[in-house]
Formats: sequence, C-alpha cells, structure tokens
Amino acid sequence: MSESARPLAITMGDACGIGPEIIARLLRDGQGAGCVVLGDVDVMRAAARLVGALQAVAVLDSPQDLAAVPPHTLAVLPVPGLPEGLVALPPGRVDARAGAAAARCIEHAVVLVRAGAVAGIVTAPIHKEALAAAGIGYPGHTEMLQALAAAGGTPAPVRMMLANEELRTVLVTIHQSLRSAIDAVTFEAVLETLRIAHAAAARWGQPRPRIAVAGLNPHAGEGGLFGDEEIRIIAPAVAAARAEGIDARGPFAPDTVFMRARHASGHPGEFDLVIAMTHDHGLIPVKYLGVEQGVNVTLGLPFVRTSPDHGTAFDIAGRGLADASSLAAAVRMARTLSAASPAP
Amino acid sequence: MSESARPLAITMGDACGIGPEIIARLLRDGQGAGCVVLGDVDVMRAAARLVGALQAVAVLDSPQDLAAVPPHTLAVLPVPGLPEGLVALPPGRVDARAGAAAARCIEHAVVLVRAGAVAGIVTAPIHKEALAAAGIGYPGHTEMLQALAAAGGTPAPVRMMLANEELRTVLVTIHQSLRSAIDAVTFEAVLETLRIAHAAAARWGQPRPRIAVAGLNPHAGEGGLFGDEEIRIIAPAVAAARAEGIDARGPFAPDTVFMRARHASGHPGEFDLVIAMTHDHGLIPVKYLGVEQGVNVTLGLPFVRTSPDHGTAFDIAGRGLADASSLAAAVRMARTLSAASPAP
Repeated sequence: MSESARPLAITMGDACGIGPEIIARLLRDGQGAGCVVLGDVDVMRAAARLVGALQAVAVLDSPQDLAAVPPHTLAVLPVPGLPEGLVALPPGRVDARAGAAAARCIEHAVVLVRAGAVAGIVTAPIHKEALAAAGIGYPGHTEMLQALAAAGGTPAPVRMMLANEELRTVLVTIHQSLRSAIDAVTFEAVLETLRIAHAAAARWGQPRPRIAVAGLNPHAGEGGLFGDEEIRIIAPAVAAARAEGIDARGPFAPDTVFMRARHASGHPGEFDLVIAMTHDHGLIPVKYLGVEQGVNVTLGLPFVRTSPDHGTAFDIAGRGLADASSLAAAVRMARTLSAASPAP
Repeated sequence: MSESARPLAITMGDACGIGPEIIARLLRDGQGAGCVVLGDVDVMRAAARLVGALQAVAVLDSPQDLAAVPPHTLAVLPVPGLPEGLVALPPGRVDARAGAAAARCIEHAVVLVRAGAVAGIVTAPIHKEALAAAGIGYPGHTEMLQALAAAGGTPAPVRMMLANEELRTVLVTIHQSLRSAIDAVTFEAVLETLRIAHAAAARWGQPRPRIAVAGLNPHAGEGGLFGDEEIRIIAPAVAAARAEGIDARGPFAPDTVFMRARHASGHPGEFDLVIAMTHDHGLIPVKYLGVEQGVNVTLGLPFVRTSPDHGTAFDIAGRGLADASSLAAAVRMARTLSAASPAP
C-alpha cells in the first residue's frame, strides 16, 4: 500500500470524556479524511448524533476498507473485546469499563501500526483514574505505548515533543518539580534527547535536522556567571552529539532561541527543532500563540503517535461543546510526520 | 506644562557603542517626535551624518525649547561636564571617557525627570566595562538609577518588566542561576513584586490592574505533586496581596498563563500583567514574536524609565548598520507609560 493511502488510526479515548464527540466533530467538519476510528460503534454513533451531524457511520472490517468509504463518513473499526454497554455510561465520570475500553483501543492501534496497516496513531484523551479502576497500571498513554512497543523487552527511552506549525520543541525533563528537573538535566539525558530527536526527524523525512539546544540558565549561564550546567553538562552533550553526526548547536540563551527557531511567514526559522531543558521553557513558546494549536508527539517509539494537548474534560463531556481543533492539529501533525515514515 | 507636551529624555549611552547612531536613525525616521537627546553635540552630529540623514541638529538650552524645533530635527540638550574629545573616540572599544560621559547623561536625565522637565527617560545602551573604567561602581542602568532616585537614602526595590504591545511580564528573579533563582522565590520577593507592579500600573493609568501570577513548577505544581513552592510561597503571597487590595490571581500554570494574558487582535488578554518567577519564563513569551519588540522597563523608580532590550553592540558600532526598532519601541512604551503619570 502506498504511504499516502495508509490511514491514520484515531483511538476513541475514554468513552465518558470528550474523545468520541471531538472525533465525530472532526469527521463532520471534513478534517478527518483518511482516518479510521478504533472504538465502539454505538459510542461513536451516539457521538455523531450529539454533535448534530447527519453523517453516516461506516463499520469497517479492516483499515483498508476506508478507501471505499464516502467523504464525511465516520469510519469505525470496532475493537474486539470491548466491554458491553459503554454507550449507556454517564458522561463525565470515572468508570472502569471506559478505562478498560480505552486501553483495548490503544493495544489494538499498536497491533495495526506495527503490522503496517495504519501509518500512525492519534490518541483521544484517556483518564488516569479510569485506567487505574480497570486495573491497568500505566499512568498514561506514553508509558503504555512504550511498554506495548517493547513487547515484553526493555522499553526504549522516549521524549515528549510539543509542536505546532511554527515550532517543535523536545523536552529533556517534563512532569517534575523545577528543582528536581535541574538535577535531572544530566549529560546522558541531554545526549539521549538529542539522539531521539535526531532519529525521529529522520523517520519523518529530515535526515539531518538542525537542532538548537536551549540552555538551562538565564543567558545560557553567561559564561558561568549565572550557573554552570551549560559548561559542565549541556555543552559537552552537544559536542558528543556532534561527534555522532548530529547537527546539534548551542547551548543558546533560552529567551531568544525559540524566537530564532520560529518558522513563520517572512521569518524562516534558523533551526528545525529546539531541545528544552524544562517543561515550561519548551511549552511556553509553543502555546503562546494559542493552546489549541499545540500537539503532543511521542518521540522514540517505533511508530508515529500524536495527541491533542488536553485531557478528557469531564466537566463538559457529553454536551457537544468540546472543541476539536487540537485533535485536528494532532491529525495534521500525524499526517506530516508519517508521510515520510517507511512502512515497517 | 501639560503631560502631552512634556518631552521624553533619551540618554546618549556609550559614545563608542550604537547608542548615538540608533538615536539619529530614530529621529531621521520620524519616530522620535517629542524627544530630547541628552548627550554630546559633536557626537550626535557625527551620528546624524553616519546614518545618512540630512537632518539638522538643534542645540537646546532646556527641554522646553523642543516645542520650537521643527520636525525631523535632532534636538540635543548638551549635558554639562562631559569629557572633551568624545567624538574622536574609536567606535567599538571600551573607553573610560565614554563611560564617564554615559553616566553624566544619566545623572542629568534624573535631575530633569525629578524636576518635572521631562516626562520620562529612555536610555540608550551603556557598557559595564566602560563604566568601571571611569570608576563608576554600578554594574548597569538599573542600579545607578535606583541610587540616583534614592538620593543618598536607601534605594527602593525595583523590578524589571519586559513588555511589548501584547504582553507585559514582571520578573521576581533575573540574572542568577536557575537553581539560585528557585531559592530567591520567597514570600517577600513575590509580594514585593506584586506591590511594585500594582503601584507602577497606577502611575501609568491602570489603578487596579489584573495581575496574573505564574507558578514556578510545571502545571503550577499540580497540587504539590511537582513541587510545593506554589503552596508554600506563591499562593500565600497572592493571598497577602489580595488582602492589600491588589487584584492578584494565581498561581497559574506557566505554560498557558502568558498565552491567556496576550492582547492581540481578536484575542483580548485576560490579564494586564503577568508576574514570572524566573527570567526565562517571563522573557521567552515576550521575545517569541520578535526580539526587536521587547522593551525593558524598570518598575519601582519614582519616574518612567524604559530601554531597548539590547546592548552597545561594539561589533557593529560606528558603521551605521544598527537597527533602531527596539529603541523606537522603548520610546513608544515610555510615552504610553508616562502619558498618565502625574508630574512630580
């Protein structure tokens, strides 16, 4: 199958959250062409009704059937082994059945992407507590995908990339206190991030991306006056990466490197990727122009995986109010990143 | 004198840096209306020639004379006591005479602004080493202005604000390592920053600004999971400020609060100011759309002071290449901030 013909899989997410309705909205608005929804047919039918779509729901036997489905049709590939009665669950509540179903959809998506039947995975939001209620020990998508990709072996290290159409930042540290994040900025962590980012870019068709490495301290330490992590840790990691053939540069002052890397009309960015030492150094610039444009990408997996940068939004779930623009951006990004990925 | 009629003073900066030429360019391009240059007449004449201006140089006796000066004229108020021969100094080198002259211009500007003869001060870049060579013990403008404003008393605390037309951020910590900045985020430092920002906004005509306080940690600590500074320090400081009548809110997640505060076409910001705990949390979003738009404002002084957000650029000084857009933004910001400030 040609690359462009391979569909993307969208996992339904937690059936009690906004996942099903934003997927239905995406398809209704014509932004889900080439996507197959992995989930429960009744849940997706109800979601289509909720968002006021007159759209048909096509039930597929395999992702390849998508080619025969008319436009604006919600193409659902039923996932085997889902719990019964999902469509009757009240929205906005933690439910073990919704957690179990969300996990099954992800497992099935990994089987399909590893078999080459889909080009990449876009995941709708899941709920950590619902997963736990179902006895699933992963705190989130990333850890679960890591384990499924390793298939019993040692999970490979992954990194979070936050990206929009202007900027792609890859994070050395994420969900920990700023104080502990400083301790986690090690030579190995920075070098590993550079290797993962470099390899991921090759998969999406940039064999030698220009990677800028942001410093940790103001002015990248101002020659050691404002902290020495740049001298002791970051610069040596950049040098080691360069010795491996990675086009890494820096460390640069955090306050200007993102601006320098920004790709906008009339402003070609100097770099293809920026490595940020902390969660907020990397996320502030990606989100600054609008949070709905930020897409979360997991690098280091043997396949493309993107997700919208929001959660299940239990507070508004089931009311047809949720905005699908971050999901739409995640689908666009998955298409971009998978266009050049070879089938496994 | 009416507020709108009071001129702004632009200090010449280091005569060996780009200060004089960007001032001349600003005036040539018609962006310096209502500005009086405090400096050396010969240096400013040479700068006008350098930038290819056919502009006249008017030598004033007092700032009030500006009213009689035709447009596009470079109005210079000679500062008494400047060293001789400044115009002959080679550009791009540290020189004690240039350092001494730069300091004299600043002193004179403070005299004028405190007397109400000018509405505010815009400072062209100075060079730390040139100041030191002249025996002047201040590392930069901020410390010098603080001392001059205190006039022998205890200098009042000041804070750096970085601002453009979309966003104003005030920094709790600035030029220190990230690790030490975390230690410097204390209850007193956050509360003092809130007080300074609140009082400054009243001076520029916003008597009760909506102030957002960014957290320090990812997701503002996620309820204590990712660090407890929000719980121990920042939230109590916000509460204390609110008890004083300051409209402070937060702490908010650093990655989205700047986006929420952004004032853009079709996107009215939720807040008037954002308090950032670290240099780069605050500066990354202000600089993201273009470094030339960022203006440095010192809050806590009894007068308006802005500056471009760049240095003396010795590497290109004297060649007529330097860009005046950050200076132009600093002049616009000083006008905005001083328009509502009462004469002392």
